[in-house]
Amino acid sequence: MSEKPVGVADIGVVGMAVMGSNLARNLAHHGNVTAVYNRTDAKTDELIRDHGSEGEFVPSHDIDDFVASLKKPRVAIIMVQAGKGTDAVIEQLADRFEPGDIIVDGGNANFLDTIRREKDLRERNLNFAGTGISGGEEGALNGPSIMPGGSDDAWKRLKPILESIAAEAEGEPCVTHIGHDGAGHFVKMVHNGIEYADMQLIAEAYDLLRRVGGHDTAALADVFDEWNQGDLESYLIEITAEVLRQKDAETGKPLVDLITDQAGSKGTGVWTVQNAVGLGIPVSGIGEAVFARAVSSKPKQRQAVQALEKGRPEPVAKPDGFEDDVRAALYASKVVAYAQGFDIIIAGAEQYDWQIDKGAVAKIWRAGCIIRARFLNRIVEAYERDQELPTLLADEYFAKIVADGEAAWRRVVSTAALSGVPVPGFASALSYYDSLSSDRLPAALIQGQRDFFGAHTYGRIDKPGVFHTLWSGDRSEVRTEGSGH
Amino acid sequence: MSEKPVGVADIGVVGMAVMGSNLARNLAHHGNVTAVYNRTDAKTDELIRDHGSEGEFVPSHDIDDFVASLKKPRVAIIMVQAGKGTDAVIEQLADRFEPGDIIVDGGNANFLDTIRREKDLRERNLNFAGTGISGGEEGALNGPSIMPGGSDDAWKRLKPILESIAAEAEGEPCVTHIGHDGAGHFVKMVHNGIEYADMQLIAEAYDLLRRVGGHDTAALADVFDEWNQGDLESYLIEITAEVLRQKDAETGKPLVDLITDQAGSKGTGVWTVQNAVGLGIPVSGIGEAVFARAVSSKPKQRQAVQALEKGRPEPVAKPDGFEDDVRAALYASKVVAYAQGFDIIIAGAEQYDWQIDKGAVAKIWRAGCIIRARFLNRIVEAYERDQELPTLLADEYFAKIVADGEAAWRRVVSTAALSGVPVPGFASALSYYDSLSSDRLPAALIQGQRDFFGAHTYGRIDKPGVFHTLWSGDRSEVRTEGSGH
Repeated sequence: MSEKPVGVADIGVVGMAVMGSNLARNLAHHGNVTAVYNRTDAKTDELIRDHGSEGEFVPSHDIDDFVASLKKPRVAIIMVQAGKGTDAVIEQLADRFEPGDIIVDGGNANFLDTIRREKDLRERNLNFAGTGISGGEEGALNGPSIMPGGSDDAWKRLKPILESIAAEAEGEPCVTHIGHDGAGHFVKMVHNGIEYADMQLIAEAYDLLRRVGGHDTAALADVFDEWNQGDLESYLIEITAEVLRQKDAETGKPLVDLITDQAGSKGTGVWTVQNAVGLGIPVSGIGEAVFARAVSSKPKQRQAVQALEKGRPEPVAKPDGFEDDVRAALYASKVVAYAQGFDIIIAGAEQYDWQIDKGAVAKIWRAGCIIRARFLNRIVEAYERDQELPTLLADEYFAKIVADGEAAWRRVVSTAALSGVPVPGFASALSYYDSLSSDRLPAALIQGQRDFFGAHTYGRIDKPGVFHTLWSGDRSEVRTEGSGH
Repeated sequence: MSEKPVGVADIGVVGMAVMGSNLARNLAHHGNVTAVYNRTDAKTDELIRDHGSEGEFVPSHDIDDFVASLKKPRVAIIMVQAGKGTDAVIEQLADRFEPGDIIVDGGNANFLDTIRREKDLRERNLNFAGTGISGGEEGALNGPSIMPGGSDDAWKRLKPILESIAAEAEGEPCVTHIGHDGAGHFVKMVHNGIEYADMQLIAEAYDLLRRVGGHDTAALADVFDEWNQGDLESYLIEITAEVLRQKDAETGKPLVDLITDQAGSKGTGVWTVQNAVGLGIPVSGIGEAVFARAVSSKPKQRQAVQALEKGRPEPVAKPDGFEDDVRAALYASKVVAYAQGFDIIIAGAEQYDWQIDKGAVAKIWRAGCIIRARFLNRIVEAYERDQELPTLLADEYFAKIVADGEAAWRRVVSTAALSGVPVPGFASALSYYDSLSSDRLPAALIQGQRDFFGAHTYGRIDKPGVFHTLWSGDRSEVRTEGSGH
């Protein structure tokens, strides 16, 4: 690189680990002249050596050269580890960028960090667009689902570039401007939370068919293949069949039976739960998925309880139509998980003052990302019918899905409880649905208890106002200004 | 107050709202000369007017007088609203206190704030002891359960005073030094989280007996009274019967049937869930309780789903022995909730480097606080048998409780699912138990999926190492350094 190109690249990518280099290749494949830079040169050189002929790359071994190689207003996408690594690169770029230039963080940042960074850079007249990118390595290369935050100005400049590399669903690119500052990373976080719930529900279906249904692994793969032909068609169902079909080369056994049954996680599920409960959103679907992974990864506790050797219940005899029942339970539980996920988005938008188009979010999740599914078209339609829908469960299409599957769902949760098969996702989703559907909840008793021990007051169904009973006095009731509840 | 007393008070209380004035009275009742101060004079004057003869009070209308009235080393307990109010009072006191003096925060502070405050004050040579106080207004007056954090030095000075006012259980005062800096508020947070779970489980039992059992409210009160004679004996069961017996003066109807069924919360349940998931602890019992309160408080969603008018399932016929089954399910679920609660304490202690004596925590919860119960003696004994117990569910006593109740628990969850009665607490607790008890969890499939779409790698049960299958390549397996999982 004796001659250093100046102002030639449409966009730059910093960070040549697999996600970054794949994204750079994707950009180059679509006619974008793409500057690339990595802290250590080897990865940059590797990209150019192995893939340099796939499009127009402008490699730099120096951050100054990298910045100089970008057309103005400059756009650089950061694809490095979330946290301090990201902050360091932002600082390097911000020191060299000029007003109006755009820094895009394409990593899995916490949206609260994104809000902070956007504010800092705005004060320096730079644009910052925290951008969720979903689809893993494969998606980064061939078309991810992209969730950009940041300002309207940044979006104008980014739109054609991001549209060129995004996945396509029914002819539409899977990218939309989610909202300002942290909105993109927030929605990406919820996407990942829903992914946790989706995977947990599939895992429960698999476990029931295995332990109660008595299916062997090959038969299980067939069931998931079949389900992938219908309403449940989705990437996660598809790869479930693929994973179940995979044979261990050494032993010839199904690989899944040799994998350690301790699920790991990278943290976005935890973030989703933490933020959801902070926003007052009941998030049992994602919550139970996070809990289930955590309990699986406690081998000492599992061993201690299993060492009691007190015998496990016999699975009940496989009920007639069990596969269909499990499929219905999975679908109904999935509707609940998505309903809760969209509730988090709605609450987040309200809290952080973002204008988020729920239908547009469902649209860009139809392809490219991990939770991509035919099903998302139904969510798009639900929000087209009613932008102010209070819950997806009240939409006519989803209400019918749940009503049609309700009896089966109840049978499956009952069967699992009697058989000793854990179904935290199915059961909590059913309880959530039953809570919404019950005209009278025992929360009234809880309010009575809270008033008894903490004078927290209560409302009455027969008159307005806030009330307190003098429990340790004469037990008369007083109207109070109270703290509400 | 023409003469201003100097150096006479054993301890001072700042904040004369109901918790603070009750705590001051409790202190004075037990021979402590108690200085009192409030931002506005009226509340201080009211205390002296109404209760001045109950013991030795030293009221001040001025913060300088208040500080001067305290014996050295000074001790002041702050009983004001958590957050900025607390910070303001700390600043006022710290400006006037001398090295070695002790500031106690007796409010419901977030333990992370407590850690920060302790550090700030330590740098100023002042002692700060964030102290959880449970028992509500009644407890503050007559004997709360007290959970002090802070330094060993502070504890030496505080011990006799706090022991004089704490509740007593079997002759022992319900106060112990929990650990340094934020340990006291952390354990108080978990106490409140467990309280949420306890209340939710009672509410589910009530709801099942009402909707499936067909009990009227008077009969329900009798059931809880009866339960309070046995293993479930506890303050919350006791007041449940009291609340259920309460009649509305105007209509003669049971009050509980007139209370709005939307449960409020003050935030410590949310904190518990946020911290527990951050620490990797599955916390379904507390989590589902927080979710249940949240869903109850979404009237628009509830109305929208109920407006679908698609009919609710008929409750199944009341099974034989249903009351006993529900009692067993409640007890088993309660064991799970407490097991998870103690897991949070253990994980918190590890994370924040506190030496917490689990048995001592169970001991001081036996009286004074909201979750006080006979049951806590069993937890004390469990940790006496084995300080390193991996989970309460592996202790012989609790294992037997769960084993004895297991069949009933399964029947109840099954019945609830078929009847449309939400039991998020019972069902998630059962799933948690079944997860620990299952020798093989579907987490293996989740690991396979994660490796498929994100190259997250997996372990194998038949050999050590970290592995990845080349899913988009030739599907051979490679050993990898990987990111663990």
